Amino acid sequence: MNTENQDEQFMRKALVEAQAAFDEGEIPVGAIVVCRGRIISRAHNLTETLTDVTAHAEMQAITAAANALGGKYLTDCTLYVTVEPCPMCAGAIGWAQIPRIVYGAPDEKRGYRRFAPDVLHPKATAIGGVLEEECRTLMQEFFKKRR
Amino acid sequence: MNTENQDEQFMRKALVEAQAAFDEGEIPVGAIVVCRGRIISRAHNLTETLTDVTAHAEMQAITAAANALGGKYLTDCTLYVTVEPCPMCAGAIGWAQIPRIVYGAPDEKRGYRRFAPDVLHPKATAIGGVLEEECRTLMQEFFKKRR
Repeated sequence: MNTENQDEQFMRKALVEAQAAFDEGEIPVGAIVVCRGRIISRAHNLTETLTDVTAHAEMQAITAAANALGGKYLTDCTLYVTVEPCPMCAGAIGWAQIPRIVYGAPDEKRGYRRFAPDVLHPKATAIGGVLEEECRTLMQEFFKKRR
Repeated sequence: MNTENQDEQFMRKALVEAQAAFDEGEIPVGAIVVCRGRIISRAHNLTETLTDVTAHAEMQAITAAANALGGKYLTDCTLYVTVEPCPMCAGAIGWAQIPRIVYGAPDEKRGYRRFAPDVLHPKATAIGGVLEEECRTLMQEFFKKRR
């Protein structure tokens, strides 16, 4: 399987998490961490449920991945997230030294590229737009329902 | 008591937390959250103990403060931290809508002002240099010991 198909396959798993967030009344963002082809953590946004602004999908996925590996640096991992990470999450991704980030929908308003473009690890690569349409639609549906 | 003295008084409490981190072999950063003159959370860096890059003092102090107040927005609070927050923590401070941040030692290398100067809430104010010497000395002692 080529990398593009693999990225889409893993993004589908992140979307399952995002859908779970949606169903719980949370802003629908899902994330997974993959280490050498294996999913080692799955998480979705829980800021409302936990009454905690730090409970973004990526933060929890990073904490759980470090727990699974027994080490805090995720240097052999890829993080998949349905929406472009915010500066907080991008900062955590940088600290964890995650070398590859794949996100779905860009977030022009609150994404890290606007506020903190250099916060990822200098050698990290970031790819956006994987299953972008599906990731964005879920967000739009959520905010439409809320209005 | 004027604000300057009060800031120093609260920074001393954050320094007690930083010293606790030092004693546990953690990079010595401490943080407290004050709401209307009362300390509602205290925390120190626990990244090594918890094997978790997200366990910075500020992140834990924010989570604990939200828990104490029963709400995720800390709009009546001041966060005191012994070292300038990193972009991750500044992002969390922004999400929590904390209107006032007081830090001790600036962090030119990894601080939010270098990487994400606009990440705090637009109306927030940040003051650096409170008990700067003591906050910095603790950090320097830690890294000297480690060499």
